[in-house]
Amino acid sequence: MVGAGQLARMTQRAAIDLGIHLDVLAVRDDEPAPLAGSGIVLGTPDDHGALLALAAGVEVITLDHELVPTDGLDAVAATGCPVRPSPAALRFAQDKLHARRELDRLGFPVPPYLDVTAAADVQGFAERHGWPVVLKARSGGYDGRGVVIVDDVAAAEEVLAGGGRWLVEAMVPIATEVAVVTARRPSGGHVTYPVVETVQDDGICIELVMPARVHPPVAAAAIDLADDIAAAIGATGILAVELFVTGADEVIVNEVALRPHNSGHATIEGSATSQFSNHLRAVLDWPLGDTAMRAPVAATVNLLGGPAPTDLGRRLPWALEVPGVHVHLYGKESRPGRKLGHVTVLGDDAEVALRAARMAADRLVGPLGPDDS
Amino acid sequence: MVGAGQLARMTQRAAIDLGIHLDVLAVRDDEPAPLAGSGIVLGTPDDHGALLALAAGVEVITLDHELVPTDGLDAVAATGCPVRPSPAALRFAQDKLHARRELDRLGFPVPPYLDVTAAADVQGFAERHGWPVVLKARSGGYDGRGVVIVDDVAAAEEVLAGGGRWLVEAMVPIATEVAVVTARRPSGGHVTYPVVETVQDDGICIELVMPARVHPPVAAAAIDLADDIAAAIGATGILAVELFVTGADEVIVNEVALRPHNSGHATIEGSATSQFSNHLRAVLDWPLGDTAMRAPVAATVNLLGGPAPTDLGRRLPWALEVPGVHVHLYGKESRPGRKLGHVTVLGDDAEVALRAARMAADRLVGPLGPDDS
Repeated sequence: MVGAGQLARMTQRAAIDLGIHLDVLAVRDDEPAPLAGSGIVLGTPDDHGALLALAAGVEVITLDHELVPTDGLDAVAATGCPVRPSPAALRFAQDKLHARRELDRLGFPVPPYLDVTAAADVQGFAERHGWPVVLKARSGGYDGRGVVIVDDVAAAEEVLAGGGRWLVEAMVPIATEVAVVTARRPSGGHVTYPVVETVQDDGICIELVMPARVHPPVAAAAIDLADDIAAAIGATGILAVELFVTGADEVIVNEVALRPHNSGHATIEGSATSQFSNHLRAVLDWPLGDTAMRAPVAATVNLLGGPAPTDLGRRLPWALEVPGVHVHLYGKESRPGRKLGHVTVLGDDAEVALRAARMAADRLVGPLGPDDS
Repeated sequence: MVGAGQLARMTQRAAIDLGIHLDVLAVRDDEPAPLAGSGIVLGTPDDHGALLALAAGVEVITLDHELVPTDGLDAVAATGCPVRPSPAALRFAQDKLHARRELDRLGFPVPPYLDVTAAADVQGFAERHGWPVVLKARSGGYDGRGVVIVDDVAAAEEVLAGGGRWLVEAMVPIATEVAVVTARRPSGGHVTYPVVETVQDDGICIELVMPARVHPPVAAAAIDLADDIAAAIGATGILAVELFVTGADEVIVNEVALRPHNSGHATIEGSATSQFSNHLRAVLDWPLGDTAMRAPVAATVNLLGGPAPTDLGRRLPWALEVPGVHVHLYGKESRPGRKLGHVTVLGDDAEVALRAARMAADRLVGPLGPDDS
């Protein structure tokens, strides 16, 4: 696996069950996956030698993030080691303009968009679609970075002056954001998880509820979209589609990720088979596991580092007092806004499960710890 | 953790979630736990230097097997590093005569037994309780080793001539064997899992059904016994009690184990919190997790190596075709009778779940693999 963050860490956990040895390409040996005991090849994703060293010892190469130049993956594929997802499929997650154009061409519902080379393009686009508009970096953005809502051309000019390549999108009147996680084998079979409701704060996912509280036709449309996109772009492994649901129950594609995804974290306890286990099974072209839920509802709250560092290990026993809470810590140092872990609670009612998960999260990363008073 | 087998491996899996770093004392670096990425100190359990090196880096010492001389653990405790379970409690699992005497003295139901120094002792015991009788090695036995049913004094003489210290027990008219797994904190709190039905073949556990199909008063009595024994002997961490249930629904104590136990493997998928997670939480004196079941029934089948070695990795995709199966491989080489892994299936009906688990197990370790024809 190229990348050694929390997604690789939770993949390592799934690999243990299946007797799979997971090696990761990591920049440091104290990243979340090697701390959890994965094998390690040191190097950056743009280092062809490191990628080839990783590929030399494994059956298949996959990724825990999309910021991997495709020329290196092409070099790996040339050695005969399968790369899943393929570099061609990966472009959908690497280049937002490419994704918009291709999905639009394939007939999938995307927001109105335009490639931007100058502020005048934004001005023209806004005259047709109205202010504010959304500027998105074509590549490299995540967790809200690279997405800016601008109210006028002066603000757009300021963003563009910072450099990089951008596209502009119309603001969608979002009622709910949802995501669908699907796992697809190279030989074609796939399984799809129930639609997940995602709550964002400043572009960062902070909470999930599975299944999403949307009308059944919306859920069905979202699942069809994910399945169809996965097949259309030839995704292998986990594909997650982030979707906007409008007040009129329209479902519009926002982003596509080709790796285990934050919106799938509730599958660890909430589903018969976790997204991490199914990612491994999918990229190895093995039979996929059941995605049925183990409880009526699963609620997940992300643990984001607060302004002051917190000692999660010391606070953990306090959080474990919350009944029914499942804690996942990623082994990271606390930094403001950083994803340090997540907690999941299963139950019969979304609000009840969310309340318990929030209480546990607050005990871990909230402003006041047990010994802070 | 002293010991690096499958119990340590599954503890490593649980440690990842909680952000706990697990170091194990292993004889080789290719044992199941280090293969799953635990930290490692090389050494044997009777090597005080290795035990002290392990203890120097950790908050608490625990065990994945009981074959650890107590003088080494006493030396660790003398450094201030807690040893959980305590060496005193551990004696219940190390010396079957000590366990019988103490449990008898404490009023727990045990089979009639006698310390044996010569075949004449067996003869006298059998005259009171009838042939056949059961000879048990006082220490070192597991998975059926060290347990011999003898029909006459000549057979007893043969066993005793092989050396070692033995006790003799009356044969119990067993209708069902069950086990109860409980987790107890040093500060006193405990949680207990539902009673598990265990099926033995030649002394080796081959199948589990949770909850056990016994009458409710039997289940209640079994749980009370486990809770009371754990409290009476001051167990910390997981304690498992193996029990005989007679045709008259009497419940009699067979063995006590002070570590995660084979009879608790169904808790990984079947329970809100696995025995491995609760073992870690208990030995760290953290709040314990919910032991409620996630489905009406969980069935587990152990994967025992067949007469000819099988390549589990190659057969795994074939086993994963069985709907609903959860596979756990331990990373061991196949040897006849060796525990190589287990499979668990959840469901509404014990026989249906067992059938699916047996089918998956047969695909992994049965006589005929997919490419063997």
